[in-house]
Amino acid sequence: MLKNFAKAKSRRFMPAAVANGIGQVMFQPCILTGLLFLVGIFIGSIECGMPQIGAGALTGAVSATLAGTLISPDLIQHKAGIWGFNGTLIGCAFPTFFAANGFMWGALIFFSILSPVLQKGLNSAMSACNINSLTIPFVLLTWIAILAAQSFGNLKLIATISDSTSINDSLNYTLQDIAIYCLKGISQVFLINSWITGIIFIIALAICSRRAAIWAIIGSGTALTTSILLGASYDAIANGLYGFSPVLTAIALGCTFSRPGVHNTIITLIAIVSTVILQGAMNVMLLPAGIPALTAPFCIVTWVFMLSSHADDDVSHSE
Amino acid sequence: MLKNFAKAKSRRFMPAAVANGIGQVMFQPCILTGLLFLVGIFIGSIECGMPQIGAGALTGAVSATLAGTLISPDLIQHKAGIWGFNGTLIGCAFPTFFAANGFMWGALIFFSILSPVLQKGLNSAMSACNINSLTIPFVLLTWIAILAAQSFGNLKLIATISDSTSINDSLNYTLQDIAIYCLKGISQVFLINSWITGIIFIIALAICSRRAAIWAIIGSGTALTTSILLGASYDAIANGLYGFSPVLTAIALGCTFSRPGVHNTIITLIAIVSTVILQGAMNVMLLPAGIPALTAPFCIVTWVFMLSSHADDDVSHSE
Amino acid sequence: MLKNFAKAKSRRFMPAAVANGIGQVMFQPCILTGLLFLVGIFIGSIECGMPQIGAGALTGAVSATLAGTLISPDLIQHKAGIWGFNGTLIGCAFPTFFAANGFMWGALIFFSILSPVLQKGLNSAMSACNINSLTIPFVLLTWIAILAAQSFGNLKLIATISDSTSINDSLNYTLQDIAIYCLKGISQVFLINSWITGIIFIIALAICSRRAAIWAIIGSGTALTTSILLGASYDAIANGLYGFSPVLTAIALGCTFSRPGVHNTIITLIAIVSTVILQGAMNVMLLPAGIPALTAPFCIVTWVFMLSSHADDDVSHSE
Repeated sequence: MLKNFAKAKSRRFMPAAVANGIGQVMFQPCILTGLLFLVGIFIGSIECGMPQIGAGALTGAVSATLAGTLISPDLIQHKAGIWGFNGTLIGCAFPTFFAANGFMWGALIFFSILSPVLQKGLNSAMSACNINSLTIPFVLLTWIAILAAQSFGNLKLIATISDSTSINDSLNYTLQDIAIYCLKGISQVFLINSWITGIIFIIALAICSRRAAIWAIIGSGTALTTSILLGASYDAIANGLYGFSPVLTAIALGCTFSRPGVHNTIITLIAIVSTVILQGAMNVMLLPAGIPALTAPFCIVTWVFMLSSHADDDVSHSE
Repeated sequence: MLKNFAKAKSRRFMPAAVANGIGQVMFQPCILTGLLFLVGIFIGSIECGMPQIGAGALTGAVSATLAGTLISPDLIQHKAGIWGFNGTLIGCAFPTFFAANGFMWGALIFFSILSPVLQKGLNSAMSACNINSLTIPFVLLTWIAILAAQSFGNLKLIATISDSTSINDSLNYTLQDIAIYCLKGISQVFLINSWITGIIFIIALAICSRRAAIWAIIGSGTALTTSILLGASYDAIANGLYGFSPVLTAIALGCTFSRPGVHNTIITLIAIVSTVILQGAMNVMLLPAGIPALTAPFCIVTWVFMLSSHADDDVSHSE
Repeated sequence: MLKNFAKAKSRRFMPAAVANGIGQVMFQPCILTGLLFLVGIFIGSIECGMPQIGAGALTGAVSATLAGTLISPDLIQHKAGIWGFNGTLIGCAFPTFFAANGFMWGALIFFSILSPVLQKGLNSAMSACNINSLTIPFVLLTWIAILAAQSFGNLKLIATISDSTSINDSLNYTLQDIAIYCLKGISQVFLINSWITGIIFIIALAICSRRAAIWAIIGSGTALTTSILLGASYDAIANGLYGFSPVLTAIALGCTFSRPGVHNTIITLIAIVSTVILQGAMNVMLLPAGIPALTAPFCIVTWVFMLSSHADDDVSHSE
């Protein structure tokens, strides 16, 4: 294992693996996309007055990528950034939820290092079903940290994500406002509440895959429409909190894990609406525990639709 | 897929598939059984002053069966009603838990259409263990709808199932009262609180399988005895709320998934008692979330006992 | 099946299977270890003024071992005690959580008999991933009993485990106090709060495996250090409540399921720290439901680390 680590280092491929890891949060193993994501995170986090989120994202991505080198011998997968994306998200989430003291940074690094272990373990269990763990290691580890902070005095919870956003008593239906809500839905994938970051993310996506960029916009727009029609809280809608999970569902099912087509487009739209509904349900269910749904609705809906289409293939093969 | 849909339509087998789907709620792919179940639901729902439950059951069964045609090419399975039973139960549950406005009917149809997708996905994941998803797609989708209704203003929760029933301060132990409690346990499989419906369901079962009818009575009777001995609330006992999951456990383990025999009878009785205890536990655990256990205790107990007997066969085979 | 039962009885191997079953709680299929564990439980339970815990442990071990004979034909596994350890723990837990009336003893025996059924079912589902159910059948069945007791009047909850322990306003850092906290962490594996029992358990472990005894001490010591550094409640620390799950993680990953080495030692230490953190999280999450985490953190962490190292082997093999 340590030999691998040395080999990887000697090839100086770590910067590439880290950048790809950041890009993989939206399924894009492109160095430039990853770098632009990082730029977007830094701009958005400075705009919100929390630059530690940008620093956290980089720290998390590097820690997780290094740990991935130690636990897995497959350097090709590694370079494609598969071990870095959960760490990147942990790095965005921890400075958002915890006071930025030494314990927070220690926890951020420790949990980022754990993320490839959990990811590899879950992938191993899920491989029989032809699905993978998506961003659920990030979700589970962040839930554990938020819950554990209530048992352990030295890790201090600060405002939850919704508190750090502006409060909206009503929605405006001008084209500009709708565009802002929609862009924030995309920036919230990295827990950033900024329409400028949303634009940067779309450009970053388009560099690697124009279809992914289009599906991100469709995902956020459909989620926005659905949450308005269902009567969700104005505040959550205006800050893009119903958008980020559906954006990932849209890219995953519309683009990454399937071929284009009318049938697939209809399925993906149904999955996007389902993600919004599931998020509404999980928000209520997780409220007593004081934890946010994060990207769990995206993971669950994507698994169900992938499993359901796999079974389809099986039957077709046996005919 | 659309070709399948056309083929299915041209064979005019949809009415058969829908009726079988209603029958499959209690594992009976018989057209007459399904039709009698529907009659029982309508009579019971009118008796309770909520005819929309009957209309919901039919709408759910048709929606889910149609969606099943679109997602699965296997017409034989389809005709046997395997895609309809979760939709039927969703159709009974939604008008019970939500105000009967346009959003409720929209949600009822949308969730019924999702039910074969979730069912197929879960079956695919569970097939390696030789079990299937039973009625858990209905349970999960109904939980999601009830929880989501608290996030989305436009779907309105009304009384929970226990409120729509008569309040009992004590139990009567005359033969007639015991029979009524027992029959309501059977009618509650479709969320109906009516002993007349219970009798119709037993007749419907007996038409397809006399063993299934007998196990339904044994299941409800054993559950009644267990819940009285353990000291459950009179109200829940008198309205059959401890009966419906054990009835399904009894039919599944006593009849559908096993051959008759002394050994199997003892195992099934233990499973029935376990279902009652698990339901008591789940009622308490789910209370803070405001969701009822529905048929989850039946699913969990049946999975455990099936998995446990499968392993048994494996060892026997390898000897 | 009944033939098996007779064969097993005629060989008079039941006492050996029961003793091994008690030893298997800490993964030691040694008769003397099991007997010493039982002595430690009795001494500790008498010290705490609750001798029924000792009697419960023996009753649970015997009930589960007998039930195991009935459901599994493999006498070699059976003699090694694989069906007894969940029953032993149920036998320790029920008199701790419930008033010692007839219903408690009935429930203790019924749930102990169910434990091999659940264990076999879960093992069957998990076998594809090369993991087994560890002590999760004990955890799940005890959770169900505690929750169900709130639905059923005849099973009465008494003090939870933390109430039966002494209250500590601060920690003492003398060598003696540290040793006592550490030893209680080991005795709490069987829900016993006694440093004398802790010493007996270490001796019992050392008889079967010196490595296991050393890992038990490392596990409890590392957990103690971690919980102090993270700022856990003094009371929980002083009574060993952060120690018992990590002790099991330490023995499982450091000794039972792996070969010795530097790499494995580091992994095991990370897993021990992770177990403490997960327990802190689960304590908070389970508080509204009124159930303790028991050994669930040990099971979850051990599964993740085992799954993660399995996948590693797979990749190595395919190279």
